[in-house]
Amino acid sequence: MDFQPERSIEILQRTPATLNTLLRGLSAPWLFANEGPETWSPYNVVGHLIHGEETDWIPRLKIILERGESRPFDPFDRTAFFEKSKGKTLDELLDTFVELRAKNLQILNEINLKSSDFDRKGTHPAFGVVTLRQLLATWVVHDLGHIRQIVRVLAKQYTEAVGPWKAYLSILGE
Amino acid sequence: MDFQPERSIEILQRTPATLNTLLRGLSAPWLFANEGPETWSPYNVVGHLIHGEETDWIPRLKIILERGESRPFDPFDRTAFFEKSKGKTLDELLDTFVELRAKNLQILNEINLKSSDFDRKGTHPAFGVVTLRQLLATWVVHDLGHIRQIVRVLAKQYTEAVGPWKAYLSILGE
Repeated sequence: MDFQPERSIEILQRTPATLNTLLRGLSAPWLFANEGPETWSPYNVVGHLIHGEETDWIPRLKIILERGESRPFDPFDRTAFFEKSKGKTLDELLDTFVELRAKNLQILNEINLKSSDFDRKGTHPAFGVVTLRQLLATWVVHDLGHIRQIVRVLAKQYTEAVGPWKAYLSILGE
Repeated sequence: MDFQPERSIEILQRTPATLNTLLRGLSAPWLFANEGPETWSPYNVVGHLIHGEETDWIPRLKIILERGESRPFDPFDRTAFFEKSKGKTLDELLDTFVELRAKNLQILNEINLKSSDFDRKGTHPAFGVVTLRQLLATWVVHDLGHIRQIVRVLAKQYTEAVGPWKAYLSILGE
């Protein structure tokens, strides 16, 4: 499928509501479950998504528009959210994510990108030249990847509980 | 995590709302996208989940309670839903799934299982003896596995669009 801005926004605007529906009110054993040492819980993933809204997607889009390839993106700090989430409840994190995503989609709407803008280039700190189109497509896939991570973490808590059915449940083998 | 009935219902009751939030109103290119020949679209997955509500989870639970190991479960027809979904819109399928899941959780509630019931045994047509506890745990993991399938199918439509970021997006490599 070719990238299309409207189609991408369909996904981006659904993610906060999807996480709200899936996670709000879940009991702590689910919310803080993970896949072992150094892996993330559903609670952690929401913190990570907030940090992306604050420092990754729209800030990088602005760098492309304002500075092009001349100014590499700041590297994304994948663990900064641990410190920033401290003391917050999941509901507070969800509220923050809902708010930041809405604000960022509003900014994107106001920038009113022309079709030629999607070919504009920036510099990724690790792999060099990327386009604005690739950045927005990655935002979409990043959302979906983290929803998948959350449901995988939840599912794995029942790896033993399913008994012989494990053989049919590929999510447990990931 | 040990299986717990209340904790399992937390997940089971969220799945219809989660799929509603994620899928209702999405444009057709997303809803009917798949991963290649003989693979399922998000639309197909909802049809499959409906068929599970009708023929798999609660019917098997009743077989365990009424007949125990003596009466093997009917094999689950993984493709019957193709015929049954024909001509239905996604919104109709979502409505049906919402309704059937609510009805099945109501039945489960009315059965009012005692803690000893979870050890009761049935016979799976492929791998033999299973417990009622394993059946319910599988219902939970099956839901989560299909949410993960849906987000993976959506994500893969942008495999090319993300450009070099593909290396960071493990959902595209599944």
